[in-house]
Amino acid sequence: MGDGPDVARDRFTRARVARLATVSPDGGPHLVPIVFVLVDDVVWSAIDSKPKSTRALRRLDNIRSHPRVSLLVDRYDDDWTSLWWVRVDGDARVVGREADDAAAALAALVAKYPQYQADPPGGPLVRVDITQWASWSHTPHT
Amino acid sequence: MGDGPDVARDRFTRARVARLATVSPDGGPHLVPIVFVLVDDVVWSAIDSKPKSTRALRRLDNIRSHPRVSLLVDRYDDDWTSLWWVRVDGDARVVGREADDAAAALAALVAKYPQYQADPPGGPLVRVDITQWASWSHTPHT
Repeated sequence: MGDGPDVARDRFTRARVARLATVSPDGGPHLVPIVFVLVDDVVWSAIDSKPKSTRALRRLDNIRSHPRVSLLVDRYDDDWTSLWWVRVDGDARVVGREADDAAAALAALVAKYPQYQADPPGGPLVRVDITQWASWSHTPHT
Repeated sequence: MGDGPDVARDRFTRARVARLATVSPDGGPHLVPIVFVLVDDVVWSAIDSKPKSTRALRRLDNIRSHPRVSLLVDRYDDDWTSLWWVRVDGDARVVGREADDAAAALAALVAKYPQYQADPPGGPLVRVDITQWASWSHTPHT
């Protein structure tokens, strides 16, 4: 059953991790967990500068060939009456750190994740302009 | 950094929830959390019989048009040294409950999730024949 948009947005905003689905150039799905921040109706995430980056590059290649992406936040609990999820679909772009809004996005990421203070991400950013929200709760929030 | 195949398999097997990425007929990615069981090299999940099923049907439609799927299991913790994920890619099929191996798969699902005992899933099953494993740990398992 769907929740109100405020509940879904609040759950999404507070989540520490999301799963990002992209589509490869050959049409197959690809999945990776990401940390992210929601600023207005844009989801931002950052790529580390470190070269574990074959994987990061795959994500970026996918976005360049298929900008449509999907992001999922969910709660699992063995008490299935407390399950919920929030999904956003959107159009993704790879954005250099010199872009106008990159500094604000990075600051928002560091504010949400103190882990970034000691070791800020050095690579480009991924911005996802949300086109659609979907959500479900086993037990609708009242 | 990658972990050994045994570590990845063990983490995947024990996980209570995975995220299933499919590709829609129009080529966009779709994401949903699922409960699942791994039997040999096949991931099984079940569709509830209840008609919240527009969503479930979308998943099934996607699989019929694009059998390639991806499943992700991950651990998030604010201590980023304990992060890990395991991803499997595979070919999915929708399988009726009368299929030869459906009974064993359902029994394995009920054994893993006691929640199903009171309310067994009434719909078809999704089987994913794994074609590829990928995994990552911040701190490699030794």
